[in-house]
Amino acid sequence: MRWRYTLCFVGILSVFLGLTMIIPLICSLITQDDSARSILLSAAITETFGLLLFFGFRIRNNDYISPREGIAIVALGWIAAGFFSALPFYFGHVFETFTDAFFESVSGITTTGASVMTNIEGVSSSLLLWRSFIQWLGGMGIIVLSLAILPLLGVGGMQMYKAEVPSPIPDKLKPRIRDTAMILWKVYAGITIAEIVFLMFGDMSFYDALNHALTTMPTGGFSTKNLSVAHYDSVYIETVIIAFMMLAGINFSLHYQMLLGKPLAFWEDSECRFFISFVLIVTLIVTINIYPVYDSFGKALRYASFQVVSIVTTTGYGSADYELWPSMSQMILLLCMFIGASAGSTGGGMKCMRIMIYFKYCYKELISLIHPRAVSHIKLNAQPVSSDVVSSVLGFLGLFVGLFALSSVMLAAMGVDLVTAFSAVASAIGNIGPGLGTVGPTENYASLPAMGKWLLVWCMLLGRLEIYTIIILLVPEFWRK
Amino acid sequence: MRWRYTLCFVGILSVFLGLTMIIPLICSLITQDDSARSILLSAAITETFGLLLFFGFRIRNNDYISPREGIAIVALGWIAAGFFSALPFYFGHVFETFTDAFFESVSGITTTGASVMTNIEGVSSSLLLWRSFIQWLGGMGIIVLSLAILPLLGVGGMQMYKAEVPSPIPDKLKPRIRDTAMILWKVYAGITIAEIVFLMFGDMSFYDALNHALTTMPTGGFSTKNLSVAHYDSVYIETVIIAFMMLAGINFSLHYQMLLGKPLAFWEDSECRFFISFVLIVTLIVTINIYPVYDSFGKALRYASFQVVSIVTTTGYGSADYELWPSMSQMILLLCMFIGASAGSTGGGMKCMRIMIYFKYCYKELISLIHPRAVSHIKLNAQPVSSDVVSSVLGFLGLFVGLFALSSVMLAAMGVDLVTAFSAVASAIGNIGPGLGTVGPTENYASLPAMGKWLLVWCMLLGRLEIYTIIILLVPEFWRK
Repeated sequence: MRWRYTLCFVGILSVFLGLTMIIPLICSLITQDDSARSILLSAAITETFGLLLFFGFRIRNNDYISPREGIAIVALGWIAAGFFSALPFYFGHVFETFTDAFFESVSGITTTGASVMTNIEGVSSSLLLWRSFIQWLGGMGIIVLSLAILPLLGVGGMQMYKAEVPSPIPDKLKPRIRDTAMILWKVYAGITIAEIVFLMFGDMSFYDALNHALTTMPTGGFSTKNLSVAHYDSVYIETVIIAFMMLAGINFSLHYQMLLGKPLAFWEDSECRFFISFVLIVTLIVTINIYPVYDSFGKALRYASFQVVSIVTTTGYGSADYELWPSMSQMILLLCMFIGASAGSTGGGMKCMRIMIYFKYCYKELISLIHPRAVSHIKLNAQPVSSDVVSSVLGFLGLFVGLFALSSVMLAAMGVDLVTAFSAVASAIGNIGPGLGTVGPTENYASLPAMGKWLLVWCMLLGRLEIYTIIILLVPEFWRK
Repeated sequence: MRWRYTLCFVGILSVFLGLTMIIPLICSLITQDDSARSILLSAAITETFGLLLFFGFRIRNNDYISPREGIAIVALGWIAAGFFSALPFYFGHVFETFTDAFFESVSGITTTGASVMTNIEGVSSSLLLWRSFIQWLGGMGIIVLSLAILPLLGVGGMQMYKAEVPSPIPDKLKPRIRDTAMILWKVYAGITIAEIVFLMFGDMSFYDALNHALTTMPTGGFSTKNLSVAHYDSVYIETVIIAFMMLAGINFSLHYQMLLGKPLAFWEDSECRFFISFVLIVTLIVTINIYPVYDSFGKALRYASFQVVSIVTTTGYGSADYELWPSMSQMILLLCMFIGASAGSTGGGMKCMRIMIYFKYCYKELISLIHPRAVSHIKLNAQPVSSDVVSSVLGFLGLFVGLFALSSVMLAAMGVDLVTAFSAVASAIGNIGPGLGTVGPTENYASLPAMGKWLLVWCMLLGRLEIYTIIILLVPEFWRK
């Protein structure tokens, strides 16, 4: 564990983050709002800190980064990004406390979308753009993390995706990350631009289209409107957003394969098939269940499909108040928070791949009761899954459920009611956004106690960094020489 | 799969069950209640059915029973016992529908203790005794099942306990079961008698003491009073019941070892240490949390300890309305429903042993991120746990959680609210008894729709027979030659 390396990389990340603050700054100068000063101040602090770290711990030669250093860079990098991204909100007096600013910022950078803003439309355009933009950056980070960094570290079964993006398998971490990242970011940016264009066809202003595209692609879910997507009350806009949420919930290496001219890539990937089938089946069930509420099959399908896709992809936009739906639909949405989208997408939650491996594992165990001596292997995409990957996946799911239970009890200890506590933690750890109860789709997280917000910040980071990357920092072994 | 064997054993079981109906019959004759006729009728039907099966499919030589046949005997046996035990309630007009009678009876035979009786004290003494007695029989069955039958079948990691009770390891199932069963049943009956004596010292009538002892030892929780144990409002009685619930929640092979003169058996067993420590820690947390409700440390400790032990051991007696407690305590109790007592006890739930193995597994996975090449083994009681056992345990936990989620959604689909649906299913699958919401400690399951009761009957059987034994019947492979 060389601290020098870790801190140098955190410095580079901060310098980069500070530079991106030029985007809200330009927005502020165009719209003539009064946020320019606070953005400049935040950028200055971020740059100073970043440059101090970078020059203080400069690396002379680009040599091998150990797994432990990789983990420390990821964890500290995300926390630092959350801290610096909060500064514009704090200096811009959007929130009264730094806790709230930090909550909103971590909710952004982890692509969660849980908000403590009580009146979104009262905040300056430049700061709202910054809020959307950090989600987009978080999504960018997560694609690289889940497709390039975590597979090499062997975190939570992500090694499945080691060889998905064509590139030589290196024994050095850095060149690999750079190659993979460039390809995936181009795809990510390309789809984002496409969504802006599609949304503008639906009579959305450029500013709104930009913001919503920046928060759809990372499956973030921050909106510039108090009512979220329900504000527009437009079937066209909802349909476009559903389509792009689905794209964002699919493994980005499949998008790249599509672009390389493999039109069947989605269909040939069993995780993608599972993800799409799951969404279709759940939408159908919820549509039937909420039909009596709307008394129209069309309306029921419209609201069910949007809300199911929004939750399963872990985006978290709202187009209807699902707390008015029958308890079965609410329960399905709550359980969907755990499932999440595909591995290698920007979505959170447990991920379809892990759920599939667990299903297959349980079935294998059942069969082994009937044929105790038979040896069978779990297969995914017709390839046997190594026992290392299976172990990682099982360990991941156990940690996920255990930390969910522990955090729920801690949140309830702060006087939060049962349904709110369960759903707030599920929503935070799955990086979704809204929950049920007092954190439901029509309310937000502002009313929670400050300690509860810090707990949820911790949960959002846990979920976003695939649990292992954060929880491993608590294992004493990690810090030993 | 030889049907002949399976049905013959189910016949033997029914004959035995029918004979035990002599106990409520004697009670009825002594108390001169009007239930004698319905008990006699039930016994006659049960005997007729049992003898028909036994003679119809008589086995000529006692040869080897295959694992599949073992599983079918256990599953069909429990279902048949649930059916026949329901007859006295049905013929005695305790319930209006057979659904209710069957629910109460399966709740008894699975040692759950969930009730659909709206006025327990209005039911005749002999039928209440039968209700308690079938819980006691269910507990007897479960000890043999979990310590003698399931380990041989390799269900859910139970093979851990294969060699715990001293007896030669046979390749034939029957002699082993008989030996083990006799030892364990003596222990079980002995402790039950001790509890009757202790309860009578607390000024409980013989009849009440008998009933409560018959339902404590199987961690069942049926009471003869509408208010459950709160009826007596006696610290002495609550303390006695706490002590015996704890005994019932400990692996019965440890009780046997104690009797063989190993006084440290409890302490030397790591699952037992975990179980006792867990109960102590949770009691402490709940006591502190509910202190403001009672404004007295003594009262808070009294109600917290009783309710925690009652839920963790999956007994389900009530001494306080925990729905008036802060949400944190309610959530802790809800989560405790999943943990359950020790493997090899009469308690339900996931079992401490499996939780421990899962904790150790997750920790091992964390460490393997730091030392990717290190090979480590999970140990329990200083013995390495075989990878087969670990696989079985992980598969079990996955099925448990998956079936819990699926059943909750199905119960909610019947119009049951979120908290009630979650807690009713958790309570049924963990064989506890009370839940939260409309199935809370002061209410019961009578108000649920009939379909919901059948669903919960299925959950109770699933939980009691360690999931695998029931779910495997749904796998087509099981029925193939």
